[in-house]
Amino acid sequence: VRHAVIMAGGSGTRLWPLSRAERPKQLIDVVPDGAPGTAHSLLAEAFGRLRTLLPADRIWVCTAARYGEQVRAGLPELAADRLVLEPVARDTANAVGLAAALVADVDPDAELAVVTADHVIRPVERFTAALESAFAALADRPRSLVTLGITPTSAATGFGYVQRGPATGLPGVAEAASFREKPDAATAVRYLASGEYLWNSGMFVWRTRTVLDALAEHLPETARGLGRIVAARPGPDRDAVLAEVFPTLPKISVDYAVLEPAAAEPGRVLVVDLDVDWLDVGSWPALARVLDGDTAGNAVRGVTVGVDSSGNVVFSDDPDHLIALVGVRDSVVVHTSDVTMICPVTDAERVKQLLAAVEERHGSRYS
Amino acid sequence: VRHAVIMAGGSGTRLWPLSRAERPKQLIDVVPDGAPGTAHSLLAEAFGRLRTLLPADRIWVCTAARYGEQVRAGLPELAADRLVLEPVARDTANAVGLAAALVADVDPDAELAVVTADHVIRPVERFTAALESAFAALADRPRSLVTLGITPTSAATGFGYVQRGPATGLPGVAEAASFREKPDAATAVRYLASGEYLWNSGMFVWRTRTVLDALAEHLPETARGLGRIVAARPGPDRDAVLAEVFPTLPKISVDYAVLEPAAAEPGRVLVVDLDVDWLDVGSWPALARVLDGDTAGNAVRGVTVGVDSSGNVVFSDDPDHLIALVGVRDSVVVHTSDVTMICPVTDAERVKQLLAAVEERHGSRYS
Repeated sequence: VRHAVIMAGGSGTRLWPLSRAERPKQLIDVVPDGAPGTAHSLLAEAFGRLRTLLPADRIWVCTAARYGEQVRAGLPELAADRLVLEPVARDTANAVGLAAALVADVDPDAELAVVTADHVIRPVERFTAALESAFAALADRPRSLVTLGITPTSAATGFGYVQRGPATGLPGVAEAASFREKPDAATAVRYLASGEYLWNSGMFVWRTRTVLDALAEHLPETARGLGRIVAARPGPDRDAVLAEVFPTLPKISVDYAVLEPAAAEPGRVLVVDLDVDWLDVGSWPALARVLDGDTAGNAVRGVTVGVDSSGNVVFSDDPDHLIALVGVRDSVVVHTSDVTMICPVTDAERVKQLLAAVEERHGSRYS
Repeated sequence: VRHAVIMAGGSGTRLWPLSRAERPKQLIDVVPDGAPGTAHSLLAEAFGRLRTLLPADRIWVCTAARYGEQVRAGLPELAADRLVLEPVARDTANAVGLAAALVADVDPDAELAVVTADHVIRPVERFTAALESAFAALADRPRSLVTLGITPTSAATGFGYVQRGPATGLPGVAEAASFREKPDAATAVRYLASGEYLWNSGMFVWRTRTVLDALAEHLPETARGLGRIVAARPGPDRDAVLAEVFPTLPKISVDYAVLEPAAAEPGRVLVVDLDVDWLDVGSWPALARVLDGDTAGNAVRGVTVGVDSSGNVVFSDDPDHLIALVGVRDSVVVHTSDVTMICPVTDAERVKQLLAAVEERHGSRYS
C-alpha cells in the first residue's frame, strides 16, 4: 500500500527574522493561497500536494521533536501516530531510515514516497503525475529505488545532480546512471548543456523493505538502532528508546548511504523526470517570486505604501503594521513583531552573517 | 515680574511616523538625556532651559487645545493655570497676543519672554545668559521689544533674519535695524558675509503691556478679541469666549503684526546676540545630530545591529524591537508600533509626500 512521508526537519536561517530557531521556514505561512492576504506554510503545501493521491492516514511527517506541536497545530488533518519526531538531527539517512522503519512497522509491504517541503512546485499536477509514474515504476520493478529528478532550468551549483541512463520502457522513467554532488559552475554548465542531468530533488519512492535492506547492508549500525526503536512498544517505551538510540546513529546523508552505492548496480536506481517550476523559497529574493507583485515591481506581503520605490521585497507578518517607503530600491525589508531586517537584495545571502552578529550581541533572544 | 511662555503649538510632519497629528514633534522624547537609552521632549527641554531662571509658576505653555492633556502629562511641574490652549491655530500674532493677555491678567506689569520649543540649543548656559541680557535691556528700556538673534553658522534660507543696527551700550545688545523674510540663496550668502544679520529666532522679551499696546495699534480687531477673552471669568466662562472669539481673529504672524512696524521706529526694537548651536531637529537627518552615534557612523536610537552598514539614521521607539541591517548605507529607518518608514537620507524631505500617499490609501489611520 502506498504511503508518503514529508521530510520537514530543516531550519532555514536565510529567512530570518521570519524564520527562527523555534519557527523554521517550512512552518511559516509564506505561500500565497490565491486569496489576497492569506497564505499557508510549505509544509501545508507539501501535505496538500500528497492529499490528491493519498488518504490522510497514509501521509506521515518527519520533523524535529521541538517542532512537533507546531506541526500538529498547522496540520489538523495529520493523524497523531503519523508524526515522526527526531530527537536530534542526524542527517537524512537516519531521518529517512526512521520514517521507513516506523511505516514498515505498521505496513511491512508499504511503498513509501519520501518528499521534501522546501520548495513550491508549479504546476502541482505535474508533481502528482510524476509521483504516479514513480509508484508505477515501483510496481513494475519492486526492488528499485526511484528518485525524482527536476528538469534543470539553469546551471545551478546549489543542487546535486542525477545522470539519466538507459530508458526503462516506462514513460518518463529512466535508469539512473550516476549521482553527482553539487558541481562547480563550469561542470554545471556542462551538465545543463548535455541534457542528461537532472537536479536531485531529494524525493524518492521505494518499498520500505528495500531501503531498510539497503541500510542493513551499508549502515548496519543504523539498521540495528532502528530495529531497537521499532521493537519497543509505541508510546512512552518507544519514545525512550528513540531518545536513547537516535542520537548515537552515525550522521550520513541518504544519497551517500543508499543511493550512490545502489546506483553502481545497473538498473537498480530509476529516475523520473519532474518538469516543473521548482521554486526554492528559502531566501528573500527567492521567496519574492511567490509573493504578490505591486505595480512598481515590488514583491509584497503585508500593508505597504511606496513612493518612487521599486524592486523591493517587502514582507510583514502583521496585517496592521504599515511599511512605508520613499525612494527605496532593490532592498529587502522584513518586519516581524520583534525584529525589522533591512538589506539590499544583493546582500540577502548575508542574513546568516547578520544573525551571527545579532547573536553575538544579544544571545539567542532574536534567534 | 519676569514670566516666560513656551510656544508649542506646531506639528512637524517631517518626523513622521514618529510625529503624528495627535503627537507632534515637540511632545516626543527625541532629545537624549545623557544617560543611555533615555530621552525627553523638546518641550521638556525648553521648560528645563527656563527653570534655571524662573520659578515653575511663572512659566507658561501655549499649545493647541488638542495637545493639552499630553502637555500636562509631559510637564508635571507646569501649573494648571499656566497652560494656554489655542482652540485653533491662528498664527503667531494671536498666539503671542493670547499668552500676553492671560499673563497680563495675572500680572499687568509682567515682563514676558516668548520662547520656542523647536530647537535643541547648546550650550544652554549661553541661552540663559542671553535671556538675562534681554531682561536687563528691558529693565533699561522698558518700552522696547527685545528679540533674540542667533549668530548664523550658514547662509540658511529657511530662517528670517534680523539686521543688527547701532550698539546700545548694553553688552551683547544692539538696536534692530530691520527684519528680513527668508532670503533667497544669494541674499543669504550676502547676509552671512556682512556679519550684520542674525537668524530671527522667534524668541522675544517684552512687557505684556507693550505687546498688547502694539496689537491695539496695529491689529485692533485682535486686541478687542483678546480683551473680551480676558474679561471673562477664568474657567468655563473664559473657555467659552475663547472658543467663540479666537477662531475669528485674523491670521497674521507676530513679525508682521508687531516687530516689523516697530522696527521702523529707531531704537524701539533691540536684538540680543545668541551665539549657540541652534539645532533644528525637525527632520530625520537633523535629528540625527542629537542622537547617539555608533562606531560605524550611524545615528541610533533603539536596539540596532548593523553589519557593513553606515551613515544611517535608525530610530525605534520600542526598546525591545531590534532593527537589524546588513549592507545598508545612508538610509533613514524609523520603527514605531504601527509603521516602519524607510528612505535614503537624501529623500528625507519627501516624508511629507510619503505621508500624503499613505493618507490617500489609508485615510488618517497612520497620520
